[in-house]
Amino acid sequence: MRTVWVELGEGAYPVEIGHGLLGRAGELLGPHLTGSKLLLVSDSQVAPLYMERAAAGLAGERCIVEPLVVPAGEGSKNLANFGLLLEALAARRFERGDAVVALGGGMISDLAGFAAASYHRGIAFAILPTTLLAMADASIGGKVAINLSQGKNLAGAFHQPKAVIADLETLRTLSTAQLIEGLAEIVKIGILYDAELFASIERDQASLLIPKLELFPAVVARAVELKARVVARDEREAGARVLLNLGHTFAHGLEAAGGYRRPTHGEAVLLGLIAAARLARNLDLLAERDQSRIELLAASLVHRCRPPAIDLERAAQAMLFDKKTAGGKLRFVLPRAIGRAEIRSDVPRSLASEALHSLQSLWS
Amino acid sequence: MRTVWVELGEGAYPVEIGHGLLGRAGELLGPHLTGSKLLLVSDSQVAPLYMERAAAGLAGERCIVEPLVVPAGEGSKNLANFGLLLEALAARRFERGDAVVALGGGMISDLAGFAAASYHRGIAFAILPTTLLAMADASIGGKVAINLSQGKNLAGAFHQPKAVIADLETLRTLSTAQLIEGLAEIVKIGILYDAELFASIERDQASLLIPKLELFPAVVARAVELKARVVARDEREAGARVLLNLGHTFAHGLEAAGGYRRPTHGEAVLLGLIAAARLARNLDLLAERDQSRIELLAASLVHRCRPPAIDLERAAQAMLFDKKTAGGKLRFVLPRAIGRAEIRSDVPRSLASEALHSLQSLWS
Repeated sequence: MRTVWVELGEGAYPVEIGHGLLGRAGELLGPHLTGSKLLLVSDSQVAPLYMERAAAGLAGERCIVEPLVVPAGEGSKNLANFGLLLEALAARRFERGDAVVALGGGMISDLAGFAAASYHRGIAFAILPTTLLAMADASIGGKVAINLSQGKNLAGAFHQPKAVIADLETLRTLSTAQLIEGLAEIVKIGILYDAELFASIERDQASLLIPKLELFPAVVARAVELKARVVARDEREAGARVLLNLGHTFAHGLEAAGGYRRPTHGEAVLLGLIAAARLARNLDLLAERDQSRIELLAASLVHRCRPPAIDLERAAQAMLFDKKTAGGKLRFVLPRAIGRAEIRSDVPRSLASEALHSLQSLWS
Repeated sequence: MRTVWVELGEGAYPVEIGHGLLGRAGELLGPHLTGSKLLLVSDSQVAPLYMERAAAGLAGERCIVEPLVVPAGEGSKNLANFGLLLEALAARRFERGDAVVALGGGMISDLAGFAAASYHRGIAFAILPTTLLAMADASIGGKVAINLSQGKNLAGAFHQPKAVIADLETLRTLSTAQLIEGLAEIVKIGILYDAELFASIERDQASLLIPKLELFPAVVARAVELKARVVARDEREAGARVLLNLGHTFAHGLEAAGGYRRPTHGEAVLLGLIAAARLARNLDLLAERDQSRIELLAASLVHRCRPPAIDLERAAQAMLFDKKTAGGKLRFVLPRAIGRAEIRSDVPRSLASEALHSLQSLWS
């Protein structure tokens, strides 16, 4: 088992990464919780696989576990389920020291985390992530939210967990698409901060997608470490955290063009990384060799998913509408090398649009 | 106009207290806001009286004001209206610098404040309080919340306003019961921290209830100052802020016994202050003269409201159920003198129950 500490103003919390940790969840969480009740929140896809194991791992002399399951899918991250969780906590008379525990992917930790942030103005919260994306990315940083009819994550809070326990065994039941969704963010973190992490994904991508579990402790721990460092510097998303949007401005446009069904978020991030690298190359900010490596890795991963062709004109409109424009110049996070990126506020709108349209080549 | 600054970790915000300030709201708020849109939230009782004046005061070259009115009454502080406000903000494409402005009593600032705290994980918020309770108490401290079916204020956040603008003219349209509701909290603050404030209410109570407006700047400013000092020391309610619960443990029991209709919260607080003073006297913590002054002032105010007789046995059960009990001892905030109180964790359950039952004398 590896432990990565996320250091924050109010204190630090551990991310435990290892095999078979669900069965030891109670022992691992125990030191970080003071109450005696846990609301274990999961979804209809994850619950049949892991709820029993997690509940057995959490229950103990001191602890009562109350399970709550919502339907799987992003649609459950809504105001109605937020209310359902709050009422469930109140009906069971949860108090400040008691905790909400999320078992699942980012949808569940976002929903359960926002309920934990709001109930009694904030009770304890812990995450048992069951997807690679949740382990390496969504569980770190304390951003919790629900969707509104106008868009994703529009209402939420910053609420840090007391602990994150990532049982790598749960990766076995992920689809290739779900693994790639997580790898997309890890590749992004590598481009931003760590050429070695990037190189390890480059080298091991086939084995990671099996998934060959012994490769994951190092990869997940490194991604968590890097994201934790950024979050620690910028808990409330004022500065450094903006870099984490690398590729995401393009990705939001691509997702909007596909009505948020296809491309998936992971596919869109990979396509966004390619577009950002091409844009950086065109601005002469990135060496050709680095651009080519980013493009090869991202394209190799995205091609395994076979995303449908995207209306790139619509994506461009959504993206440019999304961005604040001051005198036709746009703000983008752009790679300077593999392992280093920066924020540029002087990107001509025409070049951004060109980079997005150039993605057409991936389908020809 | 008087300005009291509330000093907090992240920065300070002003509470402006004076006559005719609604008409100058834009000028007063302007320096504290960066966006160009305001959602002005009010209720069906306050809106016909002050919405037009406030909207005119707020609107300007730089600023678009969007009004939103919910039905008057505590019942509106619910999840459905929370969702309504969030969707309204999203539909109007509010961004981080834009603001929610609450125009009304504590119900409106709690509801609007929780929406402001949650939308985009927190946008700017300002309060134009129109009740004495909101001016002197509810607007200070950043506690915002909605009710759940299981109880009041069960879901919420800490979200400080950018500014509070208290137009004393709005006190003219308050009922005597509403004025007393505010005075109850001011009397409480006086017992906790300031014998002079207490004495001024004692002396001027008849004129305050007219209401003779020239008395209010000093009273409101002093109450705000004192509460602001506590909140500054204990923003997240870990320590010193607990003292503000003086009288409220009894009050919650009394309100529960009356099904949260009568006694009102203000009446219940006044009765709770009497019970707390009697309990402190019985424990030999409070001089007879001080107990008698507290009782006379609180009883004089509460009798103007003529609260109905209360099932005190039911109130005792609700209160004792509400309290954590360790070995039959209870935790209470109790006055040691007018101007000083402390937390006692060694109160015998029997004495607490006796103090509550002794309130029967007020109806005989």
